[in-house]
Amino acid sequence: MPHPVLIDGQWLASSATNTFQAVNPATEETLPGEFPISPWSEVDQAIQAAADASKQMRGWPGSRFADFLEAYAEEIEARADALVAAAHAETALPVSPRLKDGELPRTTNQLRQAATAARTESWRCPTIDTATGIRSMFGAIGPVVVFGPNNFPFAFNGIAGGDFAAAIAAGNPVIAKGHSCHPETTRIFAEAAMAAIHRTDMPQALVQLIYRTSHEDGYKLVSDARIGASGYTGARHTGLRLKAAADAAGKPMYLELSSINPVFILGGALAERADAIADDFSGSCLMGTGQFCTSPGLVIVPAGESGDRFVAAVSERFQKAAVGTMLGEGVRSSFSSGIDTIQKAGATLVTGGQPGGGKGVSFNNTLLVVSGSRFLEAPEVFQTEAFGNGSLIVLSDGVQQMATIAESLEGNLTGCLYSDTQGSDDAAYADIEPALRTKVGRLLNDKMPTGVAVSAAMNHGGPYPSTGHPGFTAVGMPTAVSRFAMLQSYDNVRAARLPAVLQNASPGADVWRRVDGSWTTADVA
Amino acid sequence: MPHPVLIDGQWLASSATNTFQAVNPATEETLPGEFPISPWSEVDQAIQAAADASKQMRGWPGSRFADFLEAYAEEIEARADALVAAAHAETALPVSPRLKDGELPRTTNQLRQAATAARTESWRCPTIDTATGIRSMFGAIGPVVVFGPNNFPFAFNGIAGGDFAAAIAAGNPVIAKGHSCHPETTRIFAEAAMAAIHRTDMPQALVQLIYRTSHEDGYKLVSDARIGASGYTGARHTGLRLKAAADAAGKPMYLELSSINPVFILGGALAERADAIADDFSGSCLMGTGQFCTSPGLVIVPAGESGDRFVAAVSERFQKAAVGTMLGEGVRSSFSSGIDTIQKAGATLVTGGQPGGGKGVSFNNTLLVVSGSRFLEAPEVFQTEAFGNGSLIVLSDGVQQMATIAESLEGNLTGCLYSDTQGSDDAAYADIEPALRTKVGRLLNDKMPTGVAVSAAMNHGGPYPSTGHPGFTAVGMPTAVSRFAMLQSYDNVRAARLPAVLQNASPGADVWRRVDGSWTTADVA
Repeated sequence: MPHPVLIDGQWLASSATNTFQAVNPATEETLPGEFPISPWSEVDQAIQAAADASKQMRGWPGSRFADFLEAYAEEIEARADALVAAAHAETALPVSPRLKDGELPRTTNQLRQAATAARTESWRCPTIDTATGIRSMFGAIGPVVVFGPNNFPFAFNGIAGGDFAAAIAAGNPVIAKGHSCHPETTRIFAEAAMAAIHRTDMPQALVQLIYRTSHEDGYKLVSDARIGASGYTGARHTGLRLKAAADAAGKPMYLELSSINPVFILGGALAERADAIADDFSGSCLMGTGQFCTSPGLVIVPAGESGDRFVAAVSERFQKAAVGTMLGEGVRSSFSSGIDTIQKAGATLVTGGQPGGGKGVSFNNTLLVVSGSRFLEAPEVFQTEAFGNGSLIVLSDGVQQMATIAESLEGNLTGCLYSDTQGSDDAAYADIEPALRTKVGRLLNDKMPTGVAVSAAMNHGGPYPSTGHPGFTAVGMPTAVSRFAMLQSYDNVRAARLPAVLQNASPGADVWRRVDGSWTTADVA
Repeated sequence: MPHPVLIDGQWLASSATNTFQAVNPATEETLPGEFPISPWSEVDQAIQAAADASKQMRGWPGSRFADFLEAYAEEIEARADALVAAAHAETALPVSPRLKDGELPRTTNQLRQAATAARTESWRCPTIDTATGIRSMFGAIGPVVVFGPNNFPFAFNGIAGGDFAAAIAAGNPVIAKGHSCHPETTRIFAEAAMAAIHRTDMPQALVQLIYRTSHEDGYKLVSDARIGASGYTGARHTGLRLKAAADAAGKPMYLELSSINPVFILGGALAERADAIADDFSGSCLMGTGQFCTSPGLVIVPAGESGDRFVAAVSERFQKAAVGTMLGEGVRSSFSSGIDTIQKAGATLVTGGQPGGGKGVSFNNTLLVVSGSRFLEAPEVFQTEAFGNGSLIVLSDGVQQMATIAESLEGNLTGCLYSDTQGSDDAAYADIEPALRTKVGRLLNDKMPTGVAVSAAMNHGGPYPSTGHPGFTAVGMPTAVSRFAMLQSYDNVRAARLPAVLQNASPGADVWRRVDGSWTTADVA
């Protein structure tokens, strides 16, 4: 018997005829739990329950959703040991500091920041125009489907991560599509969510869980008339197919797809602190076995002696560093094929390039190098994403070529520029930055991109193919919340019928509203 | 020789082998000007020039774009007579008050509001998080393609309307795709734009004009790697095909498609002021020969004597009112076919239903009626858009059925509720409003939806099929501007390298920034 699915508050026996099991990447052993690939009837039941919950919650104050999110954070903390053990078995990510001390606190912090956004209504952007009497705010969009990725079993999990938190904060029920790599982790989250639903008296269908469906049912799900929007983090091909289905039905779908996170290291910086940068880069690139959306996969340095020395310094660190376990065979084989594509295009292997070297599913830390002129002959091919513990260094002939390389880049989540501290790189920075700025969501100085702070000013987003729309971020409150919202304008609506947040009286000392072009927490005169 | 196209500041002879001419809908005579259907080579030239202009303008302050928009508004005013004459000939819309006193001032007002948004940087949503040092703002997205509709030759024109103004305010060049119904009007705008470009020393390719392309070249245009985003207002089928092409390339495309703008008239309101509402409705529905995106095409009233009297009162007004000239034969035939579909589904014709009755291309003012229960048997069919001077009245059996009808609606730009002034409709309002609210972008009380104020709180948008994304508005600054922008985060970027709007010093007393969760115009400490 496979595990039941969570529909409308009940753990229901699945009528699935097909099931799947997760694999421990460290031991390569199949894990015991059997999980259902749900037929459409179960998906349909979940959609209907979510649509009903959505109706029931119309107009509820943000505090109700905040209460739930905070209770859920506590329920997660109460199950921390079980979650960490399950995620470690299913992903081979280290228990500490990664899962226990890093990703789990990040996840509960994210839920609590979403709660604050809900409580202060900051995502609503309440706008009042006293001259015309028109008022507007963002409101809930309807049931949200969240597809989480393989690489963050907590912080981006469809049932607990950033998209989930944002969708709930905006007042929507969530149908979580668990990732097939970590179903038991996801199941424990679902138990925690149900406990929080009971504690805060929320609709049973606020959070539902389907482990897996057929591709076709996935397309039906995101384009169903009862759905409000969807969020997806994962492989480009699957994401684009889902989005095409959603778009054809006019349903917003937010994607986070692929990013190689270019790092430009200018000549002065290399002369000043090459070893420190090599440390910084190697640590960032190999962190989590390179399985971060923000892992630096492309480094541009000046050709010549200093560039060659940098390649040697990184190569040495890659060889010395332990080889981590990858999330699964799928990740390893697509990493291997990415490395292969880049080599065939003319890059030289400096170190690595072979499977193995670590525990279980692994691949040696891999460094490739190519000249700037060769890169520019086929920039698309050299930007092939190799998701894992590897990177490509481009040896560039001068600042002008670096700027041309920046212009040739596809969209990325991040882009970094390292420059010296005495100003000798300032002219080069000014040449390269404008091009890089338009290609990336987050621009960094003198810092690797792997850390993604949960900040109101964070952009974990960027131009295609890093996401499907460069105006949105998946991390950072309240901006991430507003994605799962519809704009609602009130024209000539009688005062008593307006939502509290749009009435003349201030809805609270911490609620900011844009009144006649100025932001204020005061009453409207 | 067809008219030349405007590419990179030059009026270039088109190499088109095919041309088109506009038709005067009032006389049904072909107008003299011959306009090119540009081949891909011309479109490609325009894209490249726009991409170059986009690079050139990177980092320019909002004041430069504000200066251009304000100069353009003046250049338009200087050509008001020519514009009104051309638009009147091409659309048969009345010179006064519509074109001269309504739409033209609205258009220049919109350009000036966009200028203010650019000058105050209000669309950028500058956000500063002092704890993490991360800062973010919206920045230009790159060249924007704007496809204007047939029904607003000024206010939504691809070269002068709301999307145009918003795209420029965000710092982007625009490639305007003129509507084939009013090419001469569009040509005069292009001359005004060039004069403003010269006066304000902007890049020659800031504004370019292509009159028409093949469908295939349209898909190539919106999905070209050098394009930032597109805006489209028009027919659903064409818009969705363009958006599918843009989406597949990860290029944002904003659509405004179709809307029937439901109006619910509650029992108390009908008892209290049926005649006034019949006046209000007839005026709104027949205004501009019903060719407004916000024209009320569906009215729900209580069945019984009061509902029947309302139908009769409207019918009388429809018969008495002059029959206007439609924008063209295409509009008339699709209106006719919409009316036909609704009749075949079971609605009864009350008045109209036949072509003619007015000058040139016209169709008699048309009123249909259907019972609530019949409507609910095929709600999709009865929501067929009949764009023109007609409407469908639904006679509903009680409040519960009205609420069910509201739940059955597709997405719309607007939804109205008329209730009595003494409170007898309040319970019914509370039953119906929640469902209607989630189906429409703008909710109105006691007011018809045809007027669309240019207000920061306006939502001229709504759930599909009224638009392609319910989070965006096409009218209202600064919200409409932010659509043509990408989110740009700065992480650890050195202070002097930050854009002025993100530096510690306040960029201006009228520039609002979100600092650590609070909005302020002050310096950052």
